[in-house]
Amino acid sequence: MKRYVYGFGGGKADGDGTMKDTLGGKGAGLAEMSLAGVPVPPGFTIATQVCNLYFNSGNKTPSDVEKQMNRKLAELERKMGKKLGDAKNPLLVSVRSGAKFSMPGMMDTILNLGLNDKTVSGLVQNSGNARFSYDCYRRFIQMFGAVVLELEKDDFEHILESIKKKKRAKLDSDLTADDLDQVVTEFKKFVKQKTGKPFPQDPRAQLRGARDAVFRSWHNQRAAFYRRMNDIPDGLGTAVNVQAMVFGNLGDTSATGVGFTRNPATGSKEFYGEFLVNAQGEDVVAGIRTPRPISELKGILPEAYKQLHRITKNLEKHYRDIQDFEFTIQDSKLFMLQTRNGKRTGPAAVKIAVDMVKERLISKKEAVMRVEPQQLDQLLHPVLEPDAKKLLVTLAKGLPASPGAAVGRVVFLADDAVTEAPNGPVILVRGETTPDDIHGMEVAKGILTARGGMTSHAAVVARGMGTPCVAGAGDLVVNSVKKQIKVGRVTLREGDWISLDGSTGEVFIGQANTIEPDTSSGHLAQFMKWVDQFRSIRVLTNAEVPRDAKVARQFGAEGIGLCRTEHMFFEGDRIEHMRAMILADSEKDRRQALKKLLPMQRKDFAALFKVMNGYPVIIRTLDPPLHEFLPKREELMVEIAQLKALNKKKQHVKKLEGILSRVEELHEFNPMLGHRGCRLGITFPEITEMQAQAIFEAAVQCTKKGIKVIPEIMIPLVGNVKELEHQKKIIVETAKKVFAAKGKKVKYMVGTMIEVPRGALTADQVANQAEFFSFGTNDLTQTTFGFSRDDAGGFIEQYKERRIFENDPFAVLDTGGVGQLIEIAVEKGRKTRVDLEVGICGEHGGDPKSVEFCVHTGLDYVSASPYRIPIAKLAAAQAALSKDHDETMRTA
Amino acid sequence: MKRYVYGFGGGKADGDGTMKDTLGGKGAGLAEMSLAGVPVPPGFTIATQVCNLYFNSGNKTPSDVEKQMNRKLAELERKMGKKLGDAKNPLLVSVRSGAKFSMPGMMDTILNLGLNDKTVSGLVQNSGNARFSYDCYRRFIQMFGAVVLELEKDDFEHILESIKKKKRAKLDSDLTADDLDQVVTEFKKFVKQKTGKPFPQDPRAQLRGARDAVFRSWHNQRAAFYRRMNDIPDGLGTAVNVQAMVFGNLGDTSATGVGFTRNPATGSKEFYGEFLVNAQGEDVVAGIRTPRPISELKGILPEAYKQLHRITKNLEKHYRDIQDFEFTIQDSKLFMLQTRNGKRTGPAAVKIAVDMVKERLISKKEAVMRVEPQQLDQLLHPVLEPDAKKLLVTLAKGLPASPGAAVGRVVFLADDAVTEAPNGPVILVRGETTPDDIHGMEVAKGILTARGGMTSHAAVVARGMGTPCVAGAGDLVVNSVKKQIKVGRVTLREGDWISLDGSTGEVFIGQANTIEPDTSSGHLAQFMKWVDQFRSIRVLTNAEVPRDAKVARQFGAEGIGLCRTEHMFFEGDRIEHMRAMILADSEKDRRQALKKLLPMQRKDFAALFKVMNGYPVIIRTLDPPLHEFLPKREELMVEIAQLKALNKKKQHVKKLEGILSRVEELHEFNPMLGHRGCRLGITFPEITEMQAQAIFEAAVQCTKKGIKVIPEIMIPLVGNVKELEHQKKIIVETAKKVFAAKGKKVKYMVGTMIEVPRGALTADQVANQAEFFSFGTNDLTQTTFGFSRDDAGGFIEQYKERRIFENDPFAVLDTGGVGQLIEIAVEKGRKTRVDLEVGICGEHGGDPKSVEFCVHTGLDYVSASPYRIPIAKLAAAQAALSKDHDETMRTA
Repeated sequence: MKRYVYGFGGGKADGDGTMKDTLGGKGAGLAEMSLAGVPVPPGFTIATQVCNLYFNSGNKTPSDVEKQMNRKLAELERKMGKKLGDAKNPLLVSVRSGAKFSMPGMMDTILNLGLNDKTVSGLVQNSGNARFSYDCYRRFIQMFGAVVLELEKDDFEHILESIKKKKRAKLDSDLTADDLDQVVTEFKKFVKQKTGKPFPQDPRAQLRGARDAVFRSWHNQRAAFYRRMNDIPDGLGTAVNVQAMVFGNLGDTSATGVGFTRNPATGSKEFYGEFLVNAQGEDVVAGIRTPRPISELKGILPEAYKQLHRITKNLEKHYRDIQDFEFTIQDSKLFMLQTRNGKRTGPAAVKIAVDMVKERLISKKEAVMRVEPQQLDQLLHPVLEPDAKKLLVTLAKGLPASPGAAVGRVVFLADDAVTEAPNGPVILVRGETTPDDIHGMEVAKGILTARGGMTSHAAVVARGMGTPCVAGAGDLVVNSVKKQIKVGRVTLREGDWISLDGSTGEVFIGQANTIEPDTSSGHLAQFMKWVDQFRSIRVLTNAEVPRDAKVARQFGAEGIGLCRTEHMFFEGDRIEHMRAMILADSEKDRRQALKKLLPMQRKDFAALFKVMNGYPVIIRTLDPPLHEFLPKREELMVEIAQLKALNKKKQHVKKLEGILSRVEELHEFNPMLGHRGCRLGITFPEITEMQAQAIFEAAVQCTKKGIKVIPEIMIPLVGNVKELEHQKKIIVETAKKVFAAKGKKVKYMVGTMIEVPRGALTADQVANQAEFFSFGTNDLTQTTFGFSRDDAGGFIEQYKERRIFENDPFAVLDTGGVGQLIEIAVEKGRKTRVDLEVGICGEHGGDPKSVEFCVHTGLDYVSASPYRIPIAKLAAAQAALSKDHDETMRTA
Repeated sequence: MKRYVYGFGGGKADGDGTMKDTLGGKGAGLAEMSLAGVPVPPGFTIATQVCNLYFNSGNKTPSDVEKQMNRKLAELERKMGKKLGDAKNPLLVSVRSGAKFSMPGMMDTILNLGLNDKTVSGLVQNSGNARFSYDCYRRFIQMFGAVVLELEKDDFEHILESIKKKKRAKLDSDLTADDLDQVVTEFKKFVKQKTGKPFPQDPRAQLRGARDAVFRSWHNQRAAFYRRMNDIPDGLGTAVNVQAMVFGNLGDTSATGVGFTRNPATGSKEFYGEFLVNAQGEDVVAGIRTPRPISELKGILPEAYKQLHRITKNLEKHYRDIQDFEFTIQDSKLFMLQTRNGKRTGPAAVKIAVDMVKERLISKKEAVMRVEPQQLDQLLHPVLEPDAKKLLVTLAKGLPASPGAAVGRVVFLADDAVTEAPNGPVILVRGETTPDDIHGMEVAKGILTARGGMTSHAAVVARGMGTPCVAGAGDLVVNSVKKQIKVGRVTLREGDWISLDGSTGEVFIGQANTIEPDTSSGHLAQFMKWVDQFRSIRVLTNAEVPRDAKVARQFGAEGIGLCRTEHMFFEGDRIEHMRAMILADSEKDRRQALKKLLPMQRKDFAALFKVMNGYPVIIRTLDPPLHEFLPKREELMVEIAQLKALNKKKQHVKKLEGILSRVEELHEFNPMLGHRGCRLGITFPEITEMQAQAIFEAAVQCTKKGIKVIPEIMIPLVGNVKELEHQKKIIVETAKKVFAAKGKKVKYMVGTMIEVPRGALTADQVANQAEFFSFGTNDLTQTTFGFSRDDAGGFIEQYKERRIFENDPFAVLDTGGVGQLIEIAVEKGRKTRVDLEVGICGEHGGDPKSVEFCVHTGLDYVSASPYRIPIAKLAAAQAALSKDHDETMRTA
């Protein structure tokens, strides 16, 4: 018969610490501690598998399990010399959940189980404390009533309150043993009235009920929500831990507490925690009494303190990680109730990992695996002071579009941001941002938009700049004419203070304090050295301006993976030439305008080549639809209509109508699916020609100055090899001309972005022309799913709530669909061209899970925005290590 | 050594009629005729492969070929008893192109080759006709000059004209032999002056030059254009036919002509053609003299006529198809110059096929293969009278969006169409149509739009209605406020007549005559019976309204493959309830509005079930984004701005602002990639519920009346099986409720449209829930390529010109990309569910090439718009027959 119930305690255990899948985290920890001779109250664990059996058998626990449990219970009774339900010497137990991954407070717990009208007298006798005993009993009824019988918790509280009132008791502790006996009587009456049955007096029935209730709590709403937030699969189930009760509330030589073996906020090596004398565990957490720092325990119960310190130190050594532990001291005797690897902040994670390597506790490889990539964000950006945050009123919640905290006064227009910034920090608030807002975004401390997703303009640009941003806060109604934000009945005006947290998407009213990141300690630098040591693929950056490129280099980027040339056309008077180019009637006029843009582009590229000396720079030719560079259609229509209605400025109206007519010509129903990408370069070959000329002239110029230039020209949106062939021909011819004219050759590559499914499906053909592929996973996600990142806001949240999506596919690469296309393309592409360089330059390049996929799929590099370089590197290193590990396991 | 040159003539030939790949159509025909003992002037054919060798060797013909040619020339000289360049008895030859597929008039021809200053005297002697001889010589210099030496044709004409002027000659035939000798002298002078060399006197050099020029003409502009238009691959190359000259212009016993063995316009069995006495072939085509009907030849040259009649009759029997032939009679002796299967109109194709089966000339299978599916269109729609068409002025050219001719007066608004239609035919002209225009489209004789592609709203709806439509005529500037169309400097106003041809995309100014289709003969019905006999897959129709469904049934549709329910929400007061539903603030209000729509939907479905008694009806749940049902955003903005500027109608403005605010909420940047398809049904489950209820209530109602109802409910835009799971659950639960309430069950299926790549890629999972797949190839094409059908107009034409696309992928299924996804989905889907029903319901369902792909991929059905049912059926039958044929070949 399969084993479903595992005993532990007294230096022995049926399981061990490796069995988290079966025993859950808590159960595995208790077994491991038992085996290590740590004093834990004995008990047994019902395996997680039983949770699934329970649900699959229509909420019934199979009789096999029942039998095994009874056998283990008998063992426990022997160990403790007590019996469940024995009126003289009753065994009391706790019943707790414990899943593979910690889900603190999400599921149910029942303490003091085994008490009934008879055993309570036994407890009085054994403890010599009637008040304590009746208090235990009333707490048990209350917990059991709420959790197992599903009665309202508040109703029990009301009964307790009414008796306290009658007895003129202020605090619970003012009630006497008799008073509590009366509470018990009232509680039982209430249970009978509500359930139609008396409160169960049979301790075994109590145990069965509690166990099943814990199973059920796996599927309660908050547990389900927690799992969704933390990507924990629904199918794992929870174990149930039944353990002999120990009491920290048996008088002044009893106590209970929690602690960490190191400081989980900073990582510094100190014995850290708090405790309460004469209290039960829940009191520490409940916050009614203020716990005392653990160092004070030394003076009160020195023996127990010494033992606790020693045991936890050993536990840390044993588990080779910071421990988060719970303990109870009953009559001066220490019991460890739980130990687990402690959760920690980003800075602490890095410091602990580095320290433990120094202490020879873990290897460098392990250190690299100990930090979650996402946590590095906390070392790179300011954060809101946690206490300050608690005091603020939430205004709205949006997407965590660019990490870090920002505090400032609200402005509504990019121009206002520029005007106001010298007077103090400003937050730019827009319905959505456009490339026209760049100058305002540059000076703002933070950016807040009402619309747009994780890859909207605001989000992408903000991440590039390292500016905190909350995007798509749908509750905001932003009126940039009236200069006000409305959220329900709350109105904010220009100049009002707000604080936002770009790592969580929260927006607060008012001015919070922030904590700046401290990178002075050098832990991060040390840590990243190890990361680079184990990393197998390159990490490049997405950058257009030298400033971003420099930041990226500082973070260790190994080149530019995506330079979006269109971003270069918005600055200063460039937009004017760009518009002239678009409004041109003939190729000749268009070339005239392009001629003016050429020297500017050349300067841009030269500056990037200089920063990236010795590293590749992948430059994408013009990508967005041309109307993005023109005024907005509806704004023009409205302006014309107004002026016409008033019969004003006839000359101006005529001019506007001229522009509108071109805007109308360029207007698209679905710009994302329109005349853009290489389609532009094919219909207007002179644009590609100008860009190629600028690239090669800059490359030659830099090379002559001794800079090592590695240009790679990338044609966007290719779905058919002939598109690439057409563009490549222009580039190759332009290169020849430039090299001949300048008397110098520079090596370069021409490749393509794979960002429409057809490009991936025909990759074998595309690779005939392409020397490299770069997966544009933003667009590839859009076309594979058939929804745009800008419009998915309307349903993507609901999809997540309904569990249709586990993740936003724009944040985490959809390996099931988009990933299939990437795999197809890599395989087909390399079949045609063995040495094809393959990378990814979508926003997913900075997402740890997506990076893992890229490593496993055999990509050569990922490209991420500058502030995500360390994260991408860490994710890449971890993926490489886990891949090595997997491969070693397979060959072993 | 490989054979490159094939001789023919005198009852023998090196090749035969099956060798079109090598000999081209003309060469194969000449060989076959020779073998059959038909009198053809002897000669030889240089194989098509040489054309490619020529281009691949840098425009040089390999010496192997040269040698073989000389050998064949010697043979020819022997056969003819004449020698090339012999001053006494010169051999003259023609040099003609001849590709595998006929490309009439696209490439070059040179006649009378072999003439020079010496041989011309020999010709004078042999023919006894000096005038004729010098005329031959001057024609030869002119042709050779233009074709081989690449001089301007017009320059030769000018020289000829100036001599005619000098000689006071009105017609060419007024010139004497001496005059023509003078022309020859001037021509030669001109050649020398232009090329710096004398006109080549060496006949072998002439021959080599002519041969190579014919090769080069394969790549001239008009030939390239013709190939693109007719999907002829560039790589085929042309053969060159060198043939002894025969002369139809040697006097009154000589003649030349062309003809058909049956009437190619009507198909009726009559000897059909025309001829000229004393003329060369080019004169018949040139139209200077009016040719005479072939029957008149009987009186003039009775022996030759009899022989011609007998030979061509035999040729028809031999080739088992209508023959298009050319002949020359030299001194009463008949020579056949060419025979080939004749091109014919749609009605003729059907009649000839049916007749030939009756005549036991071909089998039914062959008959089915003899009609191009597309040709059936001509039997279903009126066409413009060919002669009338010639006289009209072209206004513009757009896409042939819905076939047939329409003539009427221009109206600009749907309402105006309704008002004006009773007074005479109207053509509705719009920038683009929207569902708001339906009532106008219904009464219009034709529809013309300036924007939108083959699957734009106008195109899809027009095809459904069978109304001729030209869409996306980009040159039109349509101003529906001023009620005028501008094209360049031409302005048309309301009430002006236009004529359009929806089969070609042409739009003409003025009122043309049309010819109505004649289906009374019964040939079509007979033909379609055979088609149905050989067809292996079902053909369903796309239809929403009973009228279309009835038409489709008449054409033999076997069910409805796509019922787009949203089309049902625009009529009458439904749009009001629809808008109320969309503007509702709560689920409750939404349900209220849906309740009003329920009985209307039920009635719709009941009507369709009735028409389709015994056949499946596949109903798609609501698909388009909701804002399609609301007024347009920019129109609202403009109206509000105007009223506000004038400070007018404040109450009304407030109401408009309310609507605008909801419109803004629903506004999407890329509606095609937005909140639509099953995403709507998931966020508003009550919509799916109402639709399911209407379907099942109608199904039960009809079943009770004895109608056999086969409803299949189709969920659009599924990319993740969980989406389908969510919607299916609602449908199944609604079905249970309805069946319980009405006391009757109806069998039904739930399936999905595969129209985003992710749906195809994860088809194995989707098929767990889906009982059928229907490929929505319109959307699948959009997402696979990453461009929308409405926006691709900006570049798709240029893509075709640059040969990046062979076809518009919205018209012809892209088998290389979209097809891959279909194959993946079919394979994965059937792996999960062996009996999965799979079909296609995009616009490609009516395109012959696409239907062929569907048959070969193993689909169960295609669904096409009503008027394309016969075409789809024929394509399906042909694909099945060719598949059988391929399979037989493989097993043989």
